[in-house]
Amino acid sequence: MGIAAKWNIRIGRLEAGPKNLISDVPGVTVGHCTLNAGEVQTGVTALLPHGGNLFRDKVLAACQVLNGYGKSMGLVQIEEMGTIETPILLTNTLSAGTAHTALVRHMLAQNSDIGASTSTVNPIVCECNDGYINDIRGLHVEERHVEAALRECKADFEEGAVGAGRGMSCHQLSGGIGSASRLVPAGDKTYTLGALLLTNHALKDDLLVAGEAVGPRIPNPRPKEKDKGSCIILLATDAPLSERQLKRLCMRSAVGLSRTGSYMANGSGEIAIAFSTANRVPHYPEGAVLPLGMVHDDLLDDFFRAVAETVEEAVLSSMLHAGVVTGFKGRKLLALADYIGPRPAEGSTAL
Amino acid sequence: MGIAAKWNIRIGRLEAGPKNLISDVPGVTVGHCTLNAGEVQTGVTALLPHGGNLFRDKVLAACQVLNGYGKSMGLVQIEEMGTIETPILLTNTLSAGTAHTALVRHMLAQNSDIGASTSTVNPIVCECNDGYINDIRGLHVEERHVEAALRECKADFEEGAVGAGRGMSCHQLSGGIGSASRLVPAGDKTYTLGALLLTNHALKDDLLVAGEAVGPRIPNPRPKEKDKGSCIILLATDAPLSERQLKRLCMRSAVGLSRTGSYMANGSGEIAIAFSTANRVPHYPEGAVLPLGMVHDDLLDDFFRAVAETVEEAVLSSMLHAGVVTGFKGRKLLALADYIGPRPAEGSTAL
Amino acid sequence: MGIAAKWNIRIGRLEAGPKNLISDVPGVTVGHCTLNAGEVQTGVTALLPHGGNLFRDKVLAACQVLNGYGKSMGLVQIEEMGTIETPILLTNTLSAGTAHTALVRHMLAQNSDIGASTSTVNPIVCECNDGYINDIRGLHVEERHVEAALRECKADFEEGAVGAGRGMSCHQLSGGIGSASRLVPAGDKTYTLGALLLTNHALKDDLLVAGEAVGPRIPNPRPKEKDKGSCIILLATDAPLSERQLKRLCMRSAVGLSRTGSYMANGSGEIAIAFSTANRVPHYPEGAVLPLGMVHDDLLDDFFRAVAETVEEAVLSSMLHAGVVTGFKGRKLLALADYIGPRPAEGSTAL
Amino acid sequence: MGIAAKWNIRIGRLEAGPKNLISDVPGVTVGHCTLNAGEVQTGVTALLPHGGNLFRDKVLAACQVLNGYGKSMGLVQIEEMGTIETPILLTNTLSAGTAHTALVRHMLAQNSDIGASTSTVNPIVCECNDGYINDIRGLHVEERHVEAALRECKADFEEGAVGAGRGMSCHQLSGGIGSASRLVPAGDKTYTLGALLLTNHALKDDLLVAGEAVGPRIPNPRPKEKDKGSCIILLATDAPLSERQLKRLCMRSAVGLSRTGSYMANGSGEIAIAFSTANRVPHYPEGAVLPLGMVHDDLLDDFFRAVAETVEEAVLSSMLHAGVVTGFKGRKLLALADYIGPRPAEGSTAL
Repeated sequence: MGIAAKWNIRIGRLEAGPKNLISDVPGVTVGHCTLNAGEVQTGVTALLPHGGNLFRDKVLAACQVLNGYGKSMGLVQIEEMGTIETPILLTNTLSAGTAHTALVRHMLAQNSDIGASTSTVNPIVCECNDGYINDIRGLHVEERHVEAALRECKADFEEGAVGAGRGMSCHQLSGGIGSASRLVPAGDKTYTLGALLLTNHALKDDLLVAGEAVGPRIPNPRPKEKDKGSCIILLATDAPLSERQLKRLCMRSAVGLSRTGSYMANGSGEIAIAFSTANRVPHYPEGAVLPLGMVHDDLLDDFFRAVAETVEEAVLSSMLHAGVVTGFKGRKLLALADYIGPRPAEGSTAL
Repeated sequence: MGIAAKWNIRIGRLEAGPKNLISDVPGVTVGHCTLNAGEVQTGVTALLPHGGNLFRDKVLAACQVLNGYGKSMGLVQIEEMGTIETPILLTNTLSAGTAHTALVRHMLAQNSDIGASTSTVNPIVCECNDGYINDIRGLHVEERHVEAALRECKADFEEGAVGAGRGMSCHQLSGGIGSASRLVPAGDKTYTLGALLLTNHALKDDLLVAGEAVGPRIPNPRPKEKDKGSCIILLATDAPLSERQLKRLCMRSAVGLSRTGSYMANGSGEIAIAFSTANRVPHYPEGAVLPLGMVHDDLLDDFFRAVAETVEEAVLSSMLHAGVVTGFKGRKLLALADYIGPRPAEGSTAL
Repeated sequence: MGIAAKWNIRIGRLEAGPKNLISDVPGVTVGHCTLNAGEVQTGVTALLPHGGNLFRDKVLAACQVLNGYGKSMGLVQIEEMGTIETPILLTNTLSAGTAHTALVRHMLAQNSDIGASTSTVNPIVCECNDGYINDIRGLHVEERHVEAALRECKADFEEGAVGAGRGMSCHQLSGGIGSASRLVPAGDKTYTLGALLLTNHALKDDLLVAGEAVGPRIPNPRPKEKDKGSCIILLATDAPLSERQLKRLCMRSAVGLSRTGSYMANGSGEIAIAFSTANRVPHYPEGAVLPLGMVHDDLLDDFFRAVAETVEEAVLSSMLHAGVVTGFKGRKLLALADYIGPRPAEGSTAL
Repeated sequence: MGIAAKWNIRIGRLEAGPKNLISDVPGVTVGHCTLNAGEVQTGVTALLPHGGNLFRDKVLAACQVLNGYGKSMGLVQIEEMGTIETPILLTNTLSAGTAHTALVRHMLAQNSDIGASTSTVNPIVCECNDGYINDIRGLHVEERHVEAALRECKADFEEGAVGAGRGMSCHQLSGGIGSASRLVPAGDKTYTLGALLLTNHALKDDLLVAGEAVGPRIPNPRPKEKDKGSCIILLATDAPLSERQLKRLCMRSAVGLSRTGSYMANGSGEIAIAFSTANRVPHYPEGAVLPLGMVHDDLLDDFFRAVAETVEEAVLSSMLHAGVVTGFKGRKLLALADYIGPRPAEGSTAL
């Protein structure tokens, strides 16, 4: 259920898709594997851009680093080749190598040509540091957890402290996986744009909920600390956008982050990746020239607005879906939902 | 007078400098030449990074294009060489060439070596399109207007619909020049960071004032139109920051823009330039190795916060200082100040 | 006549187009206005991507700064919007502002909507510093010279010390305008790729002609000096390439420059712009989604090779077509053609 | 022994360092672990920027992607933070995840604070695809091989088909690890610049040796194939250069690659990383402002030349040190050294 319905928080003016999730973009699915065992509070989340063979049927893509204090893998090739050819994995920072290897094995198992009769493959792995609440130095994510997340991919997926989001803290409260979607009219069609975030960034006192400074009203059991963490932003659309245009979408994720109180702190890796399911690039093309569509740039404003709205909403959704989490060294992350009730009806601005 | 005092609008938590202007950074001055004559509503604004010979004593600098629907000149060399060696000029889009030539002449007059015994010079000219209220096709800016703006540079300068800001519209209301500053502690020193904006972007209905959706409450005499325009963001600091760090500052100007309601629309050229007056690069060095300072990145958070705060405040300040402007074809820009009174005391959120 | 024929210098293995000029790409034309009067040795060169209304019928484009010690105008918007909507002008560094203004006027005259009922326009002006042989501080280029160059645009154009190339020096000898083309097979079609360079870079002793160190054998009347200057590289193709792919082409211009002896010196602005005449973007689109073609990236190798070959050849062609030039302060640029004869037949490597 | 001595091939005009290896830069060491067993022809190479604790005493760094068909890890943070804080690992493409995890463990073992009381760590892993001669799908590199390479780091290291270079093919012949150095005067000091390459790129017929087209004279037992592979370029210097300047160095690696015959083919990941051992960034700084040195950009030309020369020479050195390698499916890589003898004395150009 979207945060609009339960908490009466309405972000922006565009209409949400039916699930208000990134999976409103047809074909996109998400799966989690959650590790919840005492001091081990971490996991893996996988996102599939479509249900077919991604290596053979790549999606057009782009990325933008908003703040590069991060260890995401695969961005170099996205930028150069303009495509994504694997599932996108999210996990904790120190487990990114394990996730990479697991994804390599997954791709090799599906494609006997990779590294044999054709090129290798470009695994996409993004990460945040959940070391506050998770024993991150223990490297508890194993390859089988990645496989589990890949197997679980579906359109109806959970948000909050699940999968890679299990041990993440957003605005120093419980964070994790958040998602939202918007319908975007362009010409005589209506497209869908969705965002999925792994939120692990920003300070409590900076938290804005629909423009209001909610943060300072919430108690903070955590000691004063630097603003570090990270936020991974994945954007999907079924509109035919070019690599250049997808990069422009990525840049607008800064708008949504800013409106929930982030200023993209020094120690926070804010990285956005966007793809279009409408523009495909076959690994083995039939002809020399691929026919692509490109929405005229004059019509992009509503797409940009949709990015701003879904990213803002996904930050809040990640927090509102995340319960209290306890973990490493007995530390505890409080839940935003315990401190704000549903917002009053329109016209009032108090929480 | 800052907007905090007059309108009781407080942006952020850092303390402002004495003037709450970019000229709180020692040495920085700003000058305007305003063309206000019927259908001609335009002008030139000049910013001097310091009062000495800029060509011989360059300041370390960087830039970041947030949305590149813009015609700014000089960014390529800022990026490569990490320096600014001329005043920075702001004017209307179609007059940028004239401003460039005038700046070339200004630099040649000051430096007999340029283009003779040494290299040429890299003029910085940024622009916004004031064609709604100004007869922009008339190319009314002349070289003498640039010289006038350069001559007028001083620490106490006007904001609002003056200089290059004369014909600009922000959130479809009267916009133009806005500025703000913040004090930033780092180690045992306190540095100053200031912003100067030329605002000409965004839609009225998207306007946020200190988090509140003020825009929809204001009437709009303008027909429905696309979100186009531009916003130029100039950032100055007396802290010793490297080119890389100055670029990081630039990126945070997106935070301030977002919080006043921009989502960096397709047709809006958002371009940020930042410089440090503490790190100078002589054109004729005495030794092979220049000694520079670099604030440790772990201490940058308050600088980033200062960028977010000054940019947000400068957008509002440009609007609140800009009166009603009438011009081209009898069109009229309304003034934000006529629609909001001073905000009530802390604790209340209504305007 | 190509350099292959006259000097028996063969660069690379791909076949040249019929003229071995950038105008082998259908629709591309080039015009010069040369100022040759004593100490005034400079000019303007204009390139039209096609013969129609460029503002209404933009070409897909990209750019890449190889070394940004340069003052080119218009790159920011090429990068963001992926289009070129004006002729491309080349001139001397300090006259770039004048060229910009002239191009604005030219576009306004052709398009009554610019700056009135629609957006403004993004003029493309690139430059090199001809101050060694030209009285560059005199700002001798006037707007009428730009108009003259625009009027002269045709498929059969001159190379060497003409137009913007009049006062340029390449490897400290006479340089200027050079061009070459290659035929590139892809699928069942053959495309054309052409390069036009404004060469004004590198040291004599570094000059390589088809791999041989020719430079040291040539006398140098110029005093020892720094490697400064610049080289502008314009690339055109009739193959349907995306903005991302055109940017990839630009990067390969470094290969051609390197093979003639450049190492992209500190003071040299090497800037490449590429466009495709096959992918057009209308200013006023009929539908929301533009149909574009994109050659599969697996087929780009021959395009990359074509860039390497045409840029290498265009450097040499600019020099071999440029005669002795005398100018500012009686200085003189020698001509490469006076120091090398035709190369011997294949099999031999000596000049 | 350098290639100048043994093969009488002289690249460029700057003087080489005593070893003509990257380890001429004081403190830089390199270690290999080679897997040479039938169809397993691969390995790991480690480079240490200095002998101390890299996490606590980071080196200033930058990177440049020349062609991003590659899977290198860690570049995002190098770009943002301007530092390297781990050894740099090289291995085969599909083993990069394993190398990443091993490097994480290595850093955790050395630093109890990582991921506990301070941030996590940014492992640098670069890769090329050795799948022609190595059973790359078997993922034969294990974490212990990474540890072995790290343990082996020393100033006197081998070149050719060793370590990560074991199974690499350059110009379709045996390639791998190549290195070179140059002495660079600046002011009253002489600095050292060194390059280490992992070469796995380009076609045989394109090979240039000191400007001559040697490739076509060498037999090729390999079937006709696409130009794919990759080339990783690591640059080190003891000169105090800024992050921006180090990025400029990286760009010049294109010059060296071009002069040996590469045109940076579509499927080849050319990625350069440069660091300065003279500018250090402590993880726990003593003061707020770090004092750094920056060589004046006017003096960079010889550094750029040094990059061009060392990269060109390192490509050739990797090939001339690599013997015949047989491996996967009985395939065989021929050795360049078997096809060219020492070059004749100066004055002659024939091989």
